[in-house]
Amino acid sequence: MKFIHTADWHLGKLVHGIYMTEQQREVLLQFVNLVEEEKPDAVVIAGDLYDRSVPPTEAVELLDEILYKINVELKTPVVAISGNHDSAERLSFGTSWYRQSRLFIKGKLTNDFTPVHIEGVNFHLIPYAEPGIVRQLLQDDSVHSHHDAMKALIGEVEKHMDSSEPHVFVGHAFVLGGKTSDSERTLSVGGSGCVGSELFDPFHYTALGHLHSPDAIKHDKVKYSGSLLKYSFSEARQRKAVSIVEIDSNGSISVEERSLTPKQDMREIEGHLEELLDPGFFQAQKTDDFLKVILRDQGALIDPINKLRQVYPNVLHLERKMEQQDLRMREDYTTARDEKKSELELFEQFYNDMTTSDFTEEKRQIMVSVIEKAKREDGKK
Amino acid sequence: MKFIHTADWHLGKLVHGIYMTEQQREVLLQFVNLVEEEKPDAVVIAGDLYDRSVPPTEAVELLDEILYKINVELKTPVVAISGNHDSAERLSFGTSWYRQSRLFIKGKLTNDFTPVHIEGVNFHLIPYAEPGIVRQLLQDDSVHSHHDAMKALIGEVEKHMDSSEPHVFVGHAFVLGGKTSDSERTLSVGGSGCVGSELFDPFHYTALGHLHSPDAIKHDKVKYSGSLLKYSFSEARQRKAVSIVEIDSNGSISVEERSLTPKQDMREIEGHLEELLDPGFFQAQKTDDFLKVILRDQGALIDPINKLRQVYPNVLHLERKMEQQDLRMREDYTTARDEKKSELELFEQFYNDMTTSDFTEEKRQIMVSVIEKAKREDGKK
Repeated sequence: MKFIHTADWHLGKLVHGIYMTEQQREVLLQFVNLVEEEKPDAVVIAGDLYDRSVPPTEAVELLDEILYKINVELKTPVVAISGNHDSAERLSFGTSWYRQSRLFIKGKLTNDFTPVHIEGVNFHLIPYAEPGIVRQLLQDDSVHSHHDAMKALIGEVEKHMDSSEPHVFVGHAFVLGGKTSDSERTLSVGGSGCVGSELFDPFHYTALGHLHSPDAIKHDKVKYSGSLLKYSFSEARQRKAVSIVEIDSNGSISVEERSLTPKQDMREIEGHLEELLDPGFFQAQKTDDFLKVILRDQGALIDPINKLRQVYPNVLHLERKMEQQDLRMREDYTTARDEKKSELELFEQFYNDMTTSDFTEEKRQIMVSVIEKAKREDGKK
Repeated sequence: MKFIHTADWHLGKLVHGIYMTEQQREVLLQFVNLVEEEKPDAVVIAGDLYDRSVPPTEAVELLDEILYKINVELKTPVVAISGNHDSAERLSFGTSWYRQSRLFIKGKLTNDFTPVHIEGVNFHLIPYAEPGIVRQLLQDDSVHSHHDAMKALIGEVEKHMDSSEPHVFVGHAFVLGGKTSDSERTLSVGGSGCVGSELFDPFHYTALGHLHSPDAIKHDKVKYSGSLLKYSFSEARQRKAVSIVEIDSNGSISVEERSLTPKQDMREIEGHLEELLDPGFFQAQKTDDFLKVILRDQGALIDPINKLRQVYPNVLHLERKMEQQDLRMREDYTTARDEKKSELELFEQFYNDMTTSDFTEEKRQIMVSVIEKAKREDGKK
């Protein structure tokens, strides 16, 4: 039995003010092609189908389109759960009908722990839930942390497990050993958001969502597939893939990854403005990628973002990188203020910090007259 | 062939700050019972399933529950369209799956005018759409008004009509001859929102939604079912019902109405505060109904709303009714201002307008000292 594990589609995601819907559609169509080629027995989506509880209508239409292609056109069963970004209730709408064509969406956590059977494999669908919800649902006052909640839920799941069959757990959680990136909503305070990976020992494979990198955890059978796309610059160096999992009747597994490649990558470039605008540099690159630009220039720059966008239309973020020397100069400047330097001395310091030109005698004279004029005006008040 | 025509459920509706979800659920369960008894071949919902494009999750869960009972448990086909209150895109999600169990929801208007066939009858589902949308969809620049839009749409529908079969049109529009109430969103400016009922001549029955009264139009085969509940006090005297329509293979129809009766009615009561608070009056009434109270008292009243709510917990709106004499006194008061009466004269007039007591000499002396004190304080500034 073969299934594809994916997660964290985040449809409707805004990255630095840009809707990623078009990019998501492009990669999801690649994913549909992969399903067509691989002919898996199921597709598993481990939560965060949408980026928010009320996604934009374009995202709703995209999810409908993609699920239709996979489930109805390619007749591939789909199991999906809601993540912390989804609205459990809204994602639950219509699930009774979807089930008839083997589209199994578990939006809201309920007391029904019956697994979904596909080709001899049991899929245990546990949507994301806050510990308070789990405490109430299971009437178990000992549940305080996410770890407690998962432990209690898995206790319920185990009651429905036939040990002679293979079992796959589908969950959305921050499993210990994972690394976080900016685009994963911070859930853990003082470690209470973490779930120990040992809880998943009863399962032959655990298909996780929540962390966006397939390398977030090193474990032979508890795995994140990673997100559909890079959703923040902290993910710029992450691989983005889906996992093709083969599981035999004894529960032995083999996992193979397949990359997803959007037309536009999300990456960082770094250098002096002049270098980055040099055709010798940019002609070798995909200039329409989504970029974070780190400028090494130390002095003042006039409108660098617009200059950059002439060449790189999708600069989403610009940063300046201060060199060690520069940081020292900043300190000097701060110290200078403390020593009550004259206005002219302060300006000279500032000018030297911010530009690469000399503060000539001519410039000095101009500043002297400006400062005097400003002081006279101030005196009149 | 028999179907039940309903419309304007407005799930998630807030009436004077109160969510009607519980009342809606109660009446919808009555409706489900009616479906169970009548065993119709279809249920038709002519738009405004929800009250807004993003309904509260309770409303989403309620719609899911009710459609499940009707369509899956009672195995009754359902045809539904979106109204002006629904989000066409959000209501379209999942419709490809629903169709498999004969739940036909037409959320977004598309170029597909194929009717839904149920037991030999053709149902033509035309969701609510603004004229601009229709103009673009049909690439017909002559479409400006709702009437133009409906005419053009029906032109398309007629291309898919076999004249030997019975045809039912399902639409959501303000069809001429209808009366509006407060809770129907005003759409028409200068009559451009109205649609002439003659457009529906090609159909054996037209199941409309939008206007909330089953009496909104007097026509033998173009009909509003009316809304599920009374949704504003302007509907207090309306009947609320669903229509049971029988249609034979020649297209002959018979229509019978069935009332829906919520535990709590929405109605008006009118009288003097003292009368309304008299056990002899209120003991004969359902005091927990949703009420608009019209007070006939002419004088000042202390906290009438809270006094009323001791007896009638669900007073949603309170109005004072001015008698003819009172209106005249108001005019006198206005005139008085123009004539620059003294502060004391103005106050006396005001006191007489607002209370039923005499403005005694003692009261006059108090006001004289108050006015003098106020003037002294004003002079000090």
